[in-house]
This record gives sequence, structure tokens and C-alpha cells, in this order.
Amino acid sequence: MEAAAAKAGINVVAICGSLRKGSYNRGLLRAATELCLESIQGLKIEYVEIAPLPMINTDLEVDGTYPPVVEAFRQKIRGADAVLFGCPEYNYSVTPALKNALDWASRPPNAWVDKPAAILSAAGSAGGARAQCHLRQIAIYQDLHFINKPEFLLNAFQPPAKFDSDGNLIDEAVKEQIKTVLLALQAFTLRLKGQC
Amino acid sequence: MEAAAAKAGINVVAICGSLRKGSYNRGLLRAATELCLESIQGLKIEYVEIAPLPMINTDLEVDGTYPPVVEAFRQKIRGADAVLFGCPEYNYSVTPALKNALDWASRPPNAWVDKPAAILSAAGSAGGARAQCHLRQIAIYQDLHFINKPEFLLNAFQPPAKFDSDGNLIDEAVKEQIKTVLLALQAFTLRLKGQC
Amino acid sequence: MEAAAAKAGINVVAICGSLRKGSYNRGLLRAATELCLESIQGLKIEYVEIAPLPMINTDLEVDGTYPPVVEAFRQKIRGADAVLFGCPEYNYSVTPALKNALDWASRPPNAWVDKPAAILSAAGSAGGARAQCHLRQIAIYQDLHFINKPEFLLNAFQPPAKFDSDGNLIDEAVKEQIKTVLLALQAFTLRLKGQC
Amino acid sequence: MEAAAAKAGINVVAICGSLRKGSYNRGLLRAATELCLESIQGLKIEYVEIAPLPMINTDLEVDGTYPPVVEAFRQKIRGADAVLFGCPEYNYSVTPALKNALDWASRPPNAWVDKPAAILSAAGSAGGARAQCHLRQIAIYQDLHFINKPEFLLNAFQPPAKFDSDGNLIDEAVKEQIKTVLLALQAFTLRLKGQC
Repeated sequence: MEAAAAKAGINVVAICGSLRKGSYNRGLLRAATELCLESIQGLKIEYVEIAPLPMINTDLEVDGTYPPVVEAFRQKIRGADAVLFGCPEYNYSVTPALKNALDWASRPPNAWVDKPAAILSAAGSAGGARAQCHLRQIAIYQDLHFINKPEFLLNAFQPPAKFDSDGNLIDEAVKEQIKTVLLALQAFTLRLKGQC
Repeated sequence: MEAAAAKAGINVVAICGSLRKGSYNRGLLRAATELCLESIQGLKIEYVEIAPLPMINTDLEVDGTYPPVVEAFRQKIRGADAVLFGCPEYNYSVTPALKNALDWASRPPNAWVDKPAAILSAAGSAGGARAQCHLRQIAIYQDLHFINKPEFLLNAFQPPAKFDSDGNLIDEAVKEQIKTVLLALQAFTLRLKGQC
Repeated sequence: MEAAAAKAGINVVAICGSLRKGSYNRGLLRAATELCLESIQGLKIEYVEIAPLPMINTDLEVDGTYPPVVEAFRQKIRGADAVLFGCPEYNYSVTPALKNALDWASRPPNAWVDKPAAILSAAGSAGGARAQCHLRQIAIYQDLHFINKPEFLLNAFQPPAKFDSDGNLIDEAVKEQIKTVLLALQAFTLRLKGQC
Repeated sequence: MEAAAAKAGINVVAICGSLRKGSYNRGLLRAATELCLESIQGLKIEYVEIAPLPMINTDLEVDGTYPPVVEAFRQKIRGADAVLFGCPEYNYSVTPALKNALDWASRPPNAWVDKPAAILSAAGSAGGARAQCHLRQIAIYQDLHFINKPEFLLNAFQPPAKFDSDGNLIDEAVKEQIKTVLLALQAFTLRLKGQC
């Protein structure tokens, strides 16, 4: 009973590195959210928007407090059991918007500490491989624990089209791949919580 | 005569990854600027502020044009002969402000193309080593040519104090190190221009 | 009772990236081994030598079998509960000997799969920071789970001397740091095993 | 006349990170060698085998001298005007054989110093993207100057077949891509020599 209740409670925050309205990476996160609702019991994704965060500048920290929009974001991260990144690749690395979110929530006390995480990327021919490597390096000091398998790297521009014109994922095989990532994130989260 | 005139004309843009008023990395760039004025003939540094740039979002590009503040920044980069980065390390990578500047000026037509560059870092115990590696990876696609030697990585927190309370560099030996970086950047710039 | 027995059984393989007789990194692993014997109940380190491994060449794999010395190494890894790396930095990355060991044991079936791991580095001024980042990237596909805290990066050349002329660690404060790494590796191993 | 003579003299050493007989990356280097002979005046590739090098261990250096096979390799590098790497990807990084060659020739006096370089990779779905990034980071301290454009990353397993059963490149479009890399390496070498 208790175990089931605990399982039901896994709350994942989803963060998208792109601010574009039609972002494919946000499309992946929407698809992941729907997959949880439809077919993954015990895993719930909450999308958290990072666009309102100001560019990080520690001069904005006054007497140990953060700007309200930053503090609200930090609380969302703190309250989550796990993190799902939608990670585009800009110039062989993560986007500045994603790095900004990572940095703000790492300010003391570090809100990411000890959370499991997974990454979904839609990008060019290398599928976001280089950005994911940077993201993992950035997250060492923040103490995130990434699942290693399965990895999700999508060449977004290889035909046939994977997304519609609004950035919605329309490829069923890709949805299945996302589902395996979500199940692995769920299992790893439960394992780290001592509930597997 | 012409060669001398050309030599005199090397224009370096300096960009600081930190937005903090008292940034040590901006202090390094100020010291570099003064060193050029005082003792390096033919090398002039112009500091370009990146704080005004909006967080990159390609939805802000309308009919192939960029927001005015972005376009102004891109022109500064385009007009420069070389680039000098003040590169702090946040969470084992570059700052979001620096990544944002790199990304905006890389939008077509890429403003960084074929420019020589050098990096100065003041950071924690590893002196910015990990951030510099990320910066170099980011700059591959942008086609920057970094000098390899000498590298400049400063542990900013090791006594004695290297900076005063306003972030001004006060250590003469470190100034000498910066000078060797500037001379190497000058030589590499001239070499790539076919003027060495 | 059972939990205690299980705890007693944690077997860590220690691997050193340097082949030098007087290697500081092997000295760190020797110190770690002694610390376990003296003061960490339930954690035992077995040093596994990688020098005998031939340079990897998959042509050496015949009918799905590996050279005997490779197979012996793979069995050592397979039998371990966790991995402790002594990771020098050569040219801003891991040593070829370490990469070779990593690659051989990753051949199917991957012997590293799902094991917790920690890293000790003695190196130059950045303390092995760049090599550790490469090691972590290499280990993604191998499915190793590194502890994130505490990190251990030692500037081996900063006075006072940390090692004697045989490469034995002689600094008590550094030994205490190593102990915190070992305790974190033990705790993370038990957690991943569902025994915390 | 003199310029033509100088152009004719560009000597490139080619190094392959794989020791496999049928290596695709060696196949790329063979194709590059043939392209130079057939259609690129002034560029000559000499393949240098790295298989005989012992695993690096500085205990093998006696009185500042290297084992004969190492010294022979170092002389080949020293004598070259530029370097062409055939860079496979093993576990998201370079091969140990390639790292070993890089490390041996970097021992004092560093044989790579100030040489231009280019990379060809045949690998899995990301085409060697992660290995190339590691190679570039490794080469900072060695002071190699890589061309940035064009990059060459080949997904070797995507149909139609790019190689025959002996590892020979059979795809004409890919040969054309290699030719653009070689021409860029030639131009960059001449530019760094002050002969463009």
C-alpha cells in the first residue's frame, strides 16, 4: 500500500533549453507528458518554463535572497523527485537559457542535489550528442544522477518528418523510445529512493 | 609603411562572461586593455558589453534581421581582428551570458568566422580549466582559431590577493602573464593575416 | 545479520591509469586500500593491474572470445561491486592505459554495467579536472554511476610534498579526504543495491 | 617558382587510431592518400603506423632518450608539415592507440608543436563527434592547430555501404568530401607558413 502510494508520487520537472515557440525539444517534453498520463502509472511530469529567468548575475542576490521569479523556479526544482531535460544543441553545447536555469538553481542551497535525471534531445545530425556531454559535465557539481541507458538522441531533420508544423511529435516509434527513457528514469528514481 | 599601418590597426574585442560589477574576469580584461595602451604597440582592445543582449530565441529574428542590440553586437564582432574572452567558470562550463553572446553572433552570417582568439580566466582551484575546454568546443563551429600557448588560468582565491575590492588586478606577475598572452595573440593574428 | 553480511561483502576493484612504478595515482590507491583495512568496515579494495593488457584491437577477438589476459581482467571487473579509478591526466585527458582497460572491459558483454564508481586524481595544477571529465564521458556508454561528491583532485606538485620518493602518500589530511570519498562510494553502492 | 617549390613540399603524416586490419578509418586515410596523388598538387600523405608503439610509461625513458620505435615515430611527426588523423570513436572518446601516439610524441621536446591538423572519422550514428571533441581538447597542450571547416564525420553504418569488405572507401561523394578537407588543410598549412 505504502509502496504504491510512494510510486504514485514521483514528480518529474521538465525543462526545455529552447525558448522557441515551435521548439522540437519542447515537443518531445509534451509527448513525454502525454505518455505519462496515458500509460505510465506513478510518473507525472510538470513542465516548468525557464524563459522568465533573468540572465544570472550574483549581484541580483541580496541578503541571500533571489529575485522572486528565480526563487519560484528554485522551489519547483527542490520539490521535484527527478528532472527531465529537453536539450537542444547550439554550437556543440547546451543553450544559454538551459545553462542559466542550471546555474540559478545551483546557487546555495543547491536545489538539484541528489536528483535523478534524464535527457531528450532533438538536434542536427549528431542528435545532440555534444550538448548532452556538456550537460552531464555541468551537472557534476550540482550532483545530478543521470540514467545512462537508454540514451535519446534524435536527428530532427532526417526524413520522414518527426514533428508537425507546431512542433508536436508525430512519430510513433520515437514515442516508444521516449517511453523507454521515462520507464528507466522511473526505475532509477525508485532505486535511489530505496523503493525498488 | 603599409605593413606598419596594418600592424597598428589590430583591433581586439574583449568580452566578459560575468555580469557582476566586481567581476575578476572583467578585471583581467581591464588590465589587458591598459597593458596594450602602455606597452604593446599595434594592439588595441575594445571592451564590448554583452549584458544588454536578450536571451537567444530565434523567434526574435524577423525577416532575417536581428533585434537592434543584437545587430550592434554582431557588428562589433564582425569589425574586430581578434577576440579576447574573459571566461569565468560556472558549474564546470562557460556562463550563460557568454554562451548567449557566442550563439547570437554565430547566427548567419556567422560574425566570428576565421578570427583568432585568446582566453583569460579567473576562477576557483582549477583556474577555469573546464570552462576553457567548453569554450573551445563551442567555438569549433564558429570557426575561431585559439592560440594554444600560453594558457592563462588563474586561481583567484589563492592568497595573496590578486584583485582589490573593485575587481582590479593588483598582481604584477599576473600582469606579465597577461602580456605574454596578448603578444601571442598579436603574433598569431598577424600570422593568420599573412603579415608576420 | 543479513544486511551486515552484505555490507561486509563490498568488493571494490582499483585501477591505476599510470604504469609508472612510482606513480602518485597508484600511491593514492594504496593509501585507499590501507584506509579500508584500518578503518572502513565492509569495504575491501583489490588492486587490479592493467599493464599486461594488449592494446585493444578487435581483430584479437576470435569467435567471441578474448585473449586470456583480457578475459581475466574482464572477470575481475565483472566480479566487483564498485570501481575506484586512480586517474592521472596526460595531455588534458585520461592515459591510454586507462582508456585501453575501459575499452576492453566494455566489449560485449559489457563488464562495467551498472557499477558505482569513484575517481582519485593526482596531477598538475588543475588536479586532473580535465581527465576526470573525459573519464566520466567515456563511462556513459559503459553505464558506470559515479559519485558526484566529494570530488578528489590533488595538485601533486604543490609544496609541501604529498608523496615520498616511492610514491607513497604521506599527507594525513589528504588521507582523510580519500576516506570521505571511500565512505561516499560505500554509501552509494549500498544505495544502488537497495541496502541503505 | 619558389612558391611553387614550397607548395610542392607539403608533407602530411596520416595516423589511424584503429589497429584493425579492415579499419574504416584507415580506409579513409588510404582514400585521402590516393586523392592527393591523383588530384591535389603539392600535398603528399605519408601513412605512419602506430601499432608498434609500446603503451606509454615514462619509466621507459632513460637519460632523456626514448625506445627506438618511439624515437622513430617522434621523428616522423617532427618532420611533417601537417597531420591528418583517422579518428574512430570508442566509448565516446579517442582510441587508446591514438592517445598513446599523441602522448609519446608530446614528450619533451614536443614533436607536434605548431602543426596544422585535420580529422577524418568513420563511426556510429554521431559520426565520431564526441571523439573529435576529445581529440581537439587533448591537442591543446600539444599546440596543434586544427582546421575548423569542413568537418568530416561519417556514419559508417548507414546504407548504402560506404566501404567494401577490405575497408576501402567506395563512395564517390564521400571522396569529394575528403578532398575538400585536404584542400582546407593545405590552405591552412600554407597560411600558417606565411605562403598563402
